[in-house]
Amino acid sequence: MSEAHVPSARTRVVRESHRGVYDRATAYEILDEGFICHVGFVVDGQPFVIPTAYGRAGDHLYIHGSAASRMLRHLDRSVAVCVTVTLLEGLVLARSIFNHSMNYRSVVVLGTAVAVEDAKEKLAALESLSEHILPGRWAESRQPNEKELKATLVMRLPIEEYSAKVRQGPPIDDEEDYKFPTWAGVIPLEMVPGPPINDPRLGPNTLAPHYARAYSRKPR
Amino acid sequence: MSEAHVPSARTRVVRESHRGVYDRATAYEILDEGFICHVGFVVDGQPFVIPTAYGRAGDHLYIHGSAASRMLRHLDRSVAVCVTVTLLEGLVLARSIFNHSMNYRSVVVLGTAVAVEDAKEKLAALESLSEHILPGRWAESRQPNEKELKATLVMRLPIEEYSAKVRQGPPIDDEEDYKFPTWAGVIPLEMVPGPPINDPRLGPNTLAPHYARAYSRKPR
Repeated sequence: MSEAHVPSARTRVVRESHRGVYDRATAYEILDEGFICHVGFVVDGQPFVIPTAYGRAGDHLYIHGSAASRMLRHLDRSVAVCVTVTLLEGLVLARSIFNHSMNYRSVVVLGTAVAVEDAKEKLAALESLSEHILPGRWAESRQPNEKELKATLVMRLPIEEYSAKVRQGPPIDDEEDYKFPTWAGVIPLEMVPGPPINDPRLGPNTLAPHYARAYSRKPR
Repeated sequence: MSEAHVPSARTRVVRESHRGVYDRATAYEILDEGFICHVGFVVDGQPFVIPTAYGRAGDHLYIHGSAASRMLRHLDRSVAVCVTVTLLEGLVLARSIFNHSMNYRSVVVLGTAVAVEDAKEKLAALESLSEHILPGRWAESRQPNEKELKATLVMRLPIEEYSAKVRQGPPIDDEEDYKFPTWAGVIPLEMVPGPPINDPRLGPNTLAPHYARAYSRKPR
């Protein structure tokens, strides 16, 4: 998991390069904690950025949903994309406006996404996507039928050209600013799941399953 | 705020078009609750998607930071962008895998972002950006000096070509699936601020200001 990885000119972190990290293990931690990405693609020179769900399976990302539709409607069965996953972790309040920042971990993956056409691979991709987002759910749901599989678009993107960027910890002020009389520190931010809300069409006293009540994105 | 708005062919919500909303008030509610966007731009045919902070001031978005740097390093003082803001609000668990979904509100703004060059406008843009993210903080911080202003990149994007997309509420299953014996409902997700963490270099017993202790993105 911790292979050496040489960033390409396109994924090298240029600005504040000390925040760039290139090992696969760090990138995968971030990709595994997130499940919403922003997919960028180009139509007639215009960039589009669409939020969509994804899953990681080995060294591939699978994305599906409306982003895939929009891409495939305009383009061929493969498309140059940028997939970005961002985990926001806090506001960083420095003494100077200039040194205000955010704590976050993010990954950028560049490459060519290809439509998954094979029915068996598509089903496996959907299962890995579902398990990525909510482990345990797939087995308890009504499985996709042939018509639904046909109506579902899944794209596969190899995780080859990528970089991660991480900023954590307290603010870093210019030395002469530390005497400036203002509060400084971090306001942590976290995506927190609430108690599950039953579908109104469920019977009374139906208890949500454990995977819904104990939902968490933290590493298991 | 609730002007009629005709989406362009590029921003019309194509898939699940019932989720598309085009009034400015809805888009601005979403833009005002968020403060991190994903900016898409194109270099040599390759899309890039970079997370960055933004602020709304009237009918413009201001973005700054590394996204602006990367764009401006490669491109001219103006660039075709797509700015996407996504507020994730829940996992939607249907009975069928196919009808699983997310609750979210998102806005896509297309257009040409222009570098803010004028020092006075840049300062005003930075103040509105700061106030957008953390109201009250600007006045209590050490103000930007001339050198810092020069080192800061700010881009301005008019909110003209845009659309919003909203999905809320319980799962919608196919009628024949409602008898399928599995739990269904929503796992709510919310970005929650934690108690502020003091910079270790602050004096002991320093209390974080109200705007940090009571931080919230909900409409004020």
